[in-house]
Amino acid sequence: MERPLRAPSRAAMTPTIHAWAQRAAHAPLEAIELPDPGAPDGHDVDIEVAHCSVCHSDVHLLDGDWGDVKRPLIPGHEVVGRVVARGPDAAHALGALVGVGWQAGACGHCHACTTGREHLCTGGKQRTCVGRQGGFATRVRVDARFAFELPAGLDASTAGPLLCAGLTVFNPLERLGAGVGKRVGVVGVGGLGHMAVRFASAMGAEVIAFDPDLTKKDLALSLGARELLDAKGSLPANAVDLLLVTTHANLPWDAWMKVLDLEGTLCLIGVPSAPLTLGVDPLLDEQKRVTGSVIGSPATMRRMLTFAALHGIAPITERMPMARVNEAVARVREGKARLRVVLDA
Amino acid sequence: MERPLRAPSRAAMTPTIHAWAQRAAHAPLEAIELPDPGAPDGHDVDIEVAHCSVCHSDVHLLDGDWGDVKRPLIPGHEVVGRVVARGPDAAHALGALVGVGWQAGACGHCHACTTGREHLCTGGKQRTCVGRQGGFATRVRVDARFAFELPAGLDASTAGPLLCAGLTVFNPLERLGAGVGKRVGVVGVGGLGHMAVRFASAMGAEVIAFDPDLTKKDLALSLGARELLDAKGSLPANAVDLLLVTTHANLPWDAWMKVLDLEGTLCLIGVPSAPLTLGVDPLLDEQKRVTGSVIGSPATMRRMLTFAALHGIAPITERMPMARVNEAVARVREGKARLRVVLDA
Repeated sequence: MERPLRAPSRAAMTPTIHAWAQRAAHAPLEAIELPDPGAPDGHDVDIEVAHCSVCHSDVHLLDGDWGDVKRPLIPGHEVVGRVVARGPDAAHALGALVGVGWQAGACGHCHACTTGREHLCTGGKQRTCVGRQGGFATRVRVDARFAFELPAGLDASTAGPLLCAGLTVFNPLERLGAGVGKRVGVVGVGGLGHMAVRFASAMGAEVIAFDPDLTKKDLALSLGARELLDAKGSLPANAVDLLLVTTHANLPWDAWMKVLDLEGTLCLIGVPSAPLTLGVDPLLDEQKRVTGSVIGSPATMRRMLTFAALHGIAPITERMPMARVNEAVARVREGKARLRVVLDA
Repeated sequence: MERPLRAPSRAAMTPTIHAWAQRAAHAPLEAIELPDPGAPDGHDVDIEVAHCSVCHSDVHLLDGDWGDVKRPLIPGHEVVGRVVARGPDAAHALGALVGVGWQAGACGHCHACTTGREHLCTGGKQRTCVGRQGGFATRVRVDARFAFELPAGLDASTAGPLLCAGLTVFNPLERLGAGVGKRVGVVGVGGLGHMAVRFASAMGAEVIAFDPDLTKKDLALSLGARELLDAKGSLPANAVDLLLVTTHANLPWDAWMKVLDLEGTLCLIGVPSAPLTLGVDPLLDEQKRVTGSVIGSPATMRRMLTFAALHGIAPITERMPMARVNEAVARVREGKARLRVVLDA
């Protein structure tokens, strides 16, 4: 097999990595330089970052909400860029346009990994920007098995949020059977929720969106929702088969369980701060279910990207140059982003 | 179509119904006579009771645990007997050997009924011994669609507990995928639990039983469990894919969630008195599920009875004449039954 020619690139010409890093929780990000890490080994690839979007998880890391992490912290885990260097075992060609999400590696050997659920790996999961350098940088190195070629037709400049937020909503929608004849409720029409509405609708489901902000009605309907209901108002009974909760709020769970029809499933994808308190009657007498979901496997990622390209699903984004990263983070922290912020390298 | 000849029977010859009834909560059952209800109409059949077993639900009704019910209360909802009279629309032949469980009728029109989930009927579910006369009697009338012919090979004298307890465990085991390659935990090796161990084992699953009483080890192993573990001791982590909780206790749910492997399901079939409190991490990071289950549909009942006959699954029972009903109820209330008490007419 012929090897592709190695194309010259900025990263190849300037091995120093320029990154935006935080030295202490709550501190602003500042520009730093990292030394050339040398040629990638094994399955690793180096990606020259073209775009990296800002996810709520980045803000949680920056704000110390999830405990101590290695600092300087270089966030960013919705990365789009081209492969500029590859280890001998990496599958991607130089120049391939790829995306990277929250996960940057897995052990490959545990029960989860050997059953196609690498995102639940128990043997040494790697997170793109926890304990390693994330995508707010000119270049990032990951295991090629967690860098996904973008299908033709997907706009690289807006694809970033698909890689984490998109995967996070697509996984439970697919796994829990959203589709023709199903009614899906989406709680929260934000960064995650707006993509959930779009995906569920494209899957053929009837979608009801819930949000306390009724000015989002036109947006929700344009994404494919049948209606937008007030999440703090009177809730409809037995209205959906699957309810995807995209907010982090500690909701009145018993009230939301009533929104489910018989045998319906409430699925958390936001992370409430308190344990759930759940009456037993809906679980028993109506065989309802409560569960949650976290990102998705590499196979799910590939199906999600293919599906998004096929159905023209793109997140709604604002774009800023990477140099305005602190402003972008503030917009996400304050819920002002409409609806995801993409940083351009 | 030829009509079968109407065979003479005791019930046909003595239309008066003799029953055991409770006049006030906590009072003992006493013998009463009920007038001849006349010929059955529509889909109804009259069943001459041969055996009726005692379920914990009968005890809850007698003890007023589930609120006021119509009295005199005639319990009994694990009924085996022969059809002695039939309405014009009833399918069963006279003389057919049938069983009746907790459910005696459904509306037939609601969304649950028209999707094969009559046990979740929302349009007027009939319970065999709530607001109507149950099986502690010489004869009982039910909708023939909720009287199930016993397959050849099933012992009528021990089949009673299959009709409620058996269905209650078979439904979630089947629906939630117990089978080859799956590990099923059964919490509580009592009336429900011992049948769950037997069914799950016959379905091909690897079964771990949990009970605080370790003297049940030989029993659990003889039913097909791989081992019996102390339910109040140190619990194994990531040990099962499905955990069926057959007790009514308010368990330390977070500890039991750890017994589930990735994406495992905890399913209640006992009814805890308090709401569940559940940490969110196992739901999200390990995609675990919490649900419950209640009896089963007529189609599930038929599959359960066929499966039980095929695999020679019979509950472990003690037998008493119906005249000792108060003693039988006391044994069940006090947890002394080994493991279900069948009353013989």
